[in-house]
Amino acid sequence: MIVRPHEHWLTRIFVWHGSVLPKIFSRLLLNFLLSIAVILMLPWYYSLGIKLTVAPFSILGVAIAIFLGFRNNACYARYVEARLLWGQLMIASRSLLREVKNTLPDGTSVDSFVRLQIAFAHSLRMTLRRLPQQETLSRYLTPEQLSAVLAVQSPANHILLLMGNWLAEYRKQGVLSDILFHSLNNRLNDMSGVLAGCERIANTPVPFAYSLILHRTVYLFCIMLPFALVVDLHYMTPFVSVLISYTFIALDALAEELEDPFGLENNDLPLDAICNTIEIDMLQMNAETALPPKMSPDKCYQLT
Amino acid sequence: MIVRPHEHWLTRIFVWHGSVLPKIFSRLLLNFLLSIAVILMLPWYYSLGIKLTVAPFSILGVAIAIFLGFRNNACYARYVEARLLWGQLMIASRSLLREVKNTLPDGTSVDSFVRLQIAFAHSLRMTLRRLPQQETLSRYLTPEQLSAVLAVQSPANHILLLMGNWLAEYRKQGVLSDILFHSLNNRLNDMSGVLAGCERIANTPVPFAYSLILHRTVYLFCIMLPFALVVDLHYMTPFVSVLISYTFIALDALAEELEDPFGLENNDLPLDAICNTIEIDMLQMNAETALPPKMSPDKCYQLT
Amino acid sequence: MIVRPHEHWLTRIFVWHGSVLPKIFSRLLLNFLLSIAVILMLPWYYSLGIKLTVAPFSILGVAIAIFLGFRNNACYARYVEARLLWGQLMIASRSLLREVKNTLPDGTSVDSFVRLQIAFAHSLRMTLRRLPQQETLSRYLTPEQLSAVLAVQSPANHILLLMGNWLAEYRKQGVLSDILFHSLNNRLNDMSGVLAGCERIANTPVPFAYSLILHRTVYLFCIMLPFALVVDLHYMTPFVSVLISYTFIALDALAEELEDPFGLENNDLPLDAICNTIEIDMLQMNAETALPPKMSPDKCYQLT
Amino acid sequence: MIVRPHEHWLTRIFVWHGSVLPKIFSRLLLNFLLSIAVILMLPWYYSLGIKLTVAPFSILGVAIAIFLGFRNNACYARYVEARLLWGQLMIASRSLLREVKNTLPDGTSVDSFVRLQIAFAHSLRMTLRRLPQQETLSRYLTPEQLSAVLAVQSPANHILLLMGNWLAEYRKQGVLSDILFHSLNNRLNDMSGVLAGCERIANTPVPFAYSLILHRTVYLFCIMLPFALVVDLHYMTPFVSVLISYTFIALDALAEELEDPFGLENNDLPLDAICNTIEIDMLQMNAETALPPKMSPDKCYQLT
Amino acid sequence: MIVRPHEHWLTRIFVWHGSVLPKIFSRLLLNFLLSIAVILMLPWYYSLGIKLTVAPFSILGVAIAIFLGFRNNACYARYVEARLLWGQLMIASRSLLREVKNTLPDGTSVDSFVRLQIAFAHSLRMTLRRLPQQETLSRYLTPEQLSAVLAVQSPANHILLLMGNWLAEYRKQGVLSDILFHSLNNRLNDMSGVLAGCERIANTPVPFAYSLILHRTVYLFCIMLPFALVVDLHYMTPFVSVLISYTFIALDALAEELEDPFGLENNDLPLDAICNTIEIDMLQMNAETALPPKMSPDKCYQLT
Repeated sequence: MIVRPHEHWLTRIFVWHGSVLPKIFSRLLLNFLLSIAVILMLPWYYSLGIKLTVAPFSILGVAIAIFLGFRNNACYARYVEARLLWGQLMIASRSLLREVKNTLPDGTSVDSFVRLQIAFAHSLRMTLRRLPQQETLSRYLTPEQLSAVLAVQSPANHILLLMGNWLAEYRKQGVLSDILFHSLNNRLNDMSGVLAGCERIANTPVPFAYSLILHRTVYLFCIMLPFALVVDLHYMTPFVSVLISYTFIALDALAEELEDPFGLENNDLPLDAICNTIEIDMLQMNAETALPPKMSPDKCYQLT
Repeated sequence: MIVRPHEHWLTRIFVWHGSVLPKIFSRLLLNFLLSIAVILMLPWYYSLGIKLTVAPFSILGVAIAIFLGFRNNACYARYVEARLLWGQLMIASRSLLREVKNTLPDGTSVDSFVRLQIAFAHSLRMTLRRLPQQETLSRYLTPEQLSAVLAVQSPANHILLLMGNWLAEYRKQGVLSDILFHSLNNRLNDMSGVLAGCERIANTPVPFAYSLILHRTVYLFCIMLPFALVVDLHYMTPFVSVLISYTFIALDALAEELEDPFGLENNDLPLDAICNTIEIDMLQMNAETALPPKMSPDKCYQLT
Repeated sequence: MIVRPHEHWLTRIFVWHGSVLPKIFSRLLLNFLLSIAVILMLPWYYSLGIKLTVAPFSILGVAIAIFLGFRNNACYARYVEARLLWGQLMIASRSLLREVKNTLPDGTSVDSFVRLQIAFAHSLRMTLRRLPQQETLSRYLTPEQLSAVLAVQSPANHILLLMGNWLAEYRKQGVLSDILFHSLNNRLNDMSGVLAGCERIANTPVPFAYSLILHRTVYLFCIMLPFALVVDLHYMTPFVSVLISYTFIALDALAEELEDPFGLENNDLPLDAICNTIEIDMLQMNAETALPPKMSPDKCYQLT
Repeated sequence: MIVRPHEHWLTRIFVWHGSVLPKIFSRLLLNFLLSIAVILMLPWYYSLGIKLTVAPFSILGVAIAIFLGFRNNACYARYVEARLLWGQLMIASRSLLREVKNTLPDGTSVDSFVRLQIAFAHSLRMTLRRLPQQETLSRYLTPEQLSAVLAVQSPANHILLLMGNWLAEYRKQGVLSDILFHSLNNRLNDMSGVLAGCERIANTPVPFAYSLILHRTVYLFCIMLPFALVVDLHYMTPFVSVLISYTFIALDALAEELEDPFGLENNDLPLDAICNTIEIDMLQMNAETALPPKMSPDKCYQLT
Repeated sequence: MIVRPHEHWLTRIFVWHGSVLPKIFSRLLLNFLLSIAVILMLPWYYSLGIKLTVAPFSILGVAIAIFLGFRNNACYARYVEARLLWGQLMIASRSLLREVKNTLPDGTSVDSFVRLQIAFAHSLRMTLRRLPQQETLSRYLTPEQLSAVLAVQSPANHILLLMGNWLAEYRKQGVLSDILFHSLNNRLNDMSGVLAGCERIANTPVPFAYSLILHRTVYLFCIMLPFALVVDLHYMTPFVSVLISYTFIALDALAEELEDPFGLENNDLPLDAICNTIEIDMLQMNAETALPPKMSPDKCYQLT
């Protein structure tokens, strides 16, 4: 939820935080050392009659690049869809509260309903990040609600059930007509869609074999690369080998981060900040003034 | 429905279970042996004036990689859509039960309706996997329902018809207004969409010729590869040939697995686990306490 | 609507039926003969000072592969969308009949409505395949309906109009409330969407120039290929040339088949079988017992 | 709206009409002449110590092919979406008229409403093609309607307003219930969606810099190509250079045609024919017999 | 919102405004100067035994081109989605006003509602561009509305709340039935969807590491390129190096522009012009005659 300043194109080359460099630095160092070892053992290498040329590695490199491109696309699509779902939660939350306030008789208190809406967002966030929910939810739910919510397999789904009950009560009292109840209920269905969509992304990774094949070929390719480059490039081998390896290994590592967009790594979605925004929006729409502080990013432009 | 732990990047190269390696190991071995044979017959090969260079194989390799990439995309899209449809079944099931509980008068028993919902999920699963349905469905349906369901071409569709009848009964009694019946009926339509969508994926494979052309070119390419590599690489031929072949053959084999996401192979969808989750959710929403045990993955992190 | 058995990966290389091989065999043979002619005239070729190397063909080959990949994607997307539309017809047909049976008073005969639904599917199929419709439709429609349907530009659209009239009659009698009529009418709109979607695919091919450019470059590339390969490969030229040509020409030919998914070629959609399934489903939902026989595939696993 | 006969694969290589050849012929001729000039000045070229090899052009060629592929995809997506929108207009027009005829009391004349629907299609077509609308619209609208429609920024939107007024009149008379009016109004919203979608495509081209970068690199690449090819290919340079240039320039030119699908060029959408089909459909659904003649394609299989 | 004239293909190569050239000119110049330096130091370069060949750069160049292609696609998808959302705002605005005018009793003044609609578009635009809103909004809102709108985190969302209140007032007076209120409220939900969608695009950039990896590899590639080219090309190095660098750097720079489509750079969306069109449309639909002047593009065919 923050926009990073446009650094100069030249300084941007050396950015460390927020990149995947810290994570893959050791692997690139290994590649560099391997390249130096290969240069040193070149004479012995010749004497054995072993020869590796760049041409076959060209076929392999292009093939891996194509497959890696498709895999990165698939992982990025998961990230984009996850963000879209949280955007739909924002839409449904605002629309639901607006409709509730516009259709219930003037003066009806919606405070408890607003708390249920906020609790839903937090519960979804904590479910996706596999965090304990009791403490946070206790701020928004009554003790009976809380114990019922925590007793079931899917807490967020139970909160939806409670929201449905709250609305159904007004229908049974004759305050909400069937058509308006139907309309409000559709917003709950939208939220149910967000919930199941996020569960789907969190529980069904990209097929394991897909990641594995690429992971494997990328690393074998990078390991064999110095042997193929050394005949042509000699002293320049380590630099070119590390540059090529960086391109492939960095994208492989990034794909892994994007594959699980609900995690807590650098390039994951800032769920805390989104929940914070939803909470403030809900409270302001209900004209409340006791608001939580607005979250701001840390010095590396990161939000959690 | 389980998240595999992040193994170290180095150990991950040697993972066996869950990869496609067991399936294609014999083909790679064949490629390795062929490469050795090619090295041995190299002198005789020269004497015949036969010469193969890497350059034309570079054109072919890149072309195959591009087409294979597109096909893998198409197969992966089937997998993703199949998972999406089961996610929509989850959404529709929860939303339908919530609406039913919220709109029918307090105290109305929905037990039989919950059983119909669970039976629908199981029937869809067993239809897609071409399994006999009688035994499983008898746990949820009355004998009359069961015999009617098994008599028709599409059992799951008949279960939807029964759910519609159950709801229509309340409308005819004047308990459900037309607008609420219309809303509940839309959830049945959503489930009908899931059913027809899954049937579509199961019954209409990727055009056979598409798979065939790529299968054929991949294998012919891998067979001819050692002949082209041997002149340049000599003793290193088997290693490079197997690495390139692995990249192509493994992705071809994976595409075949993903093409039919409802199967029982390693990288197929865990339909048993999804049905288990739906069943527990439905029962908990109905406040029942006799729940089936939650499924957990085997030691290779696989669910069925 | 049938799943082909998984042949062994080795036998699969030699499959003939269902592949595009029969269609392009003569072109590959021509390429083979041309390659032999090029080998024979090589000395004369040298004396003329004509020289062609593989390098420029590498640029061209990769460029064509990329563009061919995109075009195949576009043609495959048409195939997938066409199948999706027929799947939506299945959804709408089942949902419409379920709703009609659930909302009309018990004992209302829906036989004539079921016939209109079946006629719609067949009329759509025959319109897309440009077949005469009179004989088939006469099995489902009354003579007056038939003559009205055949008199207009779009017969299937007129059948929708008749279905709308049938439903409107009940609304005017006060048997269907406005809200239920609105709901049923939405199903008709879905079917109207399927109709217009299929018409769109059938009447608007991929831009002609797109197919043409690729067709042209693929063939010119394959014709010039032996001249470039012969200097390096000599006697091996025909084999490599035919393998590369096969990859490009087969995908070009397949794209042409997929572009028009409603045809009667091997890789087109089995519209007869889908209509057959819809017909049986409709009749079974109406509890009729005189069913048409279920279609089964021929010995090459093909359905029409 | 017409299907071109499948010419033989061999004759298809020489098709002129409907291809982009007429448009780019002069550029290819220029490339051919440049290649000949390069051959002639080869000795002088050597003496200057200028040398260009194919290898760097290989990197450039592949990079351009990839980017051109993505751009063509983007332009084709605009074409497909434009066709989709006109297909949705067809769906909405038919559904709206069917609903109007089914829900208004028997005997209500819908002639003027049918004219408004036809006028909407023609107005949209003429707006997109920036044609004067007065003459055509005067055939369907009353003088007062016409002057009101032509006075505003978006004539088609005003026609929608008139259709809404026509329907609202019946609601105010109590002939249409709110629920049926709501349903009919949704069809108008669909048409509003088509209108704004087409305006969006017509007014927002692919970012200019995107087209420009590719246009520029394609032409600079083709201009430098003969200099790189001549050392290896000598007398064959013109043929290979023109073939490669054709592949790149033709796709660049086609992308430009597809980018604006509402134009009047060969590969643009046949809006006249689509409007003609809508007009005949509307009149036949209203059981009118004075129909405009059905449009048929010219001798080059082109429709406007 | 303006169509640039089709310049001749030859002059188009030299276009300066609207391209990314002004932005990257200094980097290309640097590349040119570096190439000249490399030529000058070539003898010293040889004596050190440093050798760089084009082959490894070919692998790297193709890999970067593939990844850059995918990234450009992702950034372009953001641009397209952003434009789509503003198109949906256009649809929702027109449909909402048409419905309001058609369903409220004749003679009801909708002037204040029209102002709220216009204010929503402007507020959304200014939020996305992080501009102060007070002055512009004061033209459309009453002072009380204005202070309430500016007090909250999301001004545009509060305007939606005000529109909902305006409509709810008529429902409470019994002038709007529940079904018509539900229909109008759905249009507000559509606008809420546009709002949250735009916020999502503005606040969630493409994962930073993704841009970073490509930025880094593109620049390192371009810096090392002259060293690899100089051995083969000698005096021609600067020209080929700058051409290749231009292709890569220009697309990298364009992707950055497209990534944030709401900015004020050359290739960003003309939000001012879209708001202007919405404003004129709304006022003309309300038959007002005091219209703002229609915006027209500057001499470089640019709109803001």
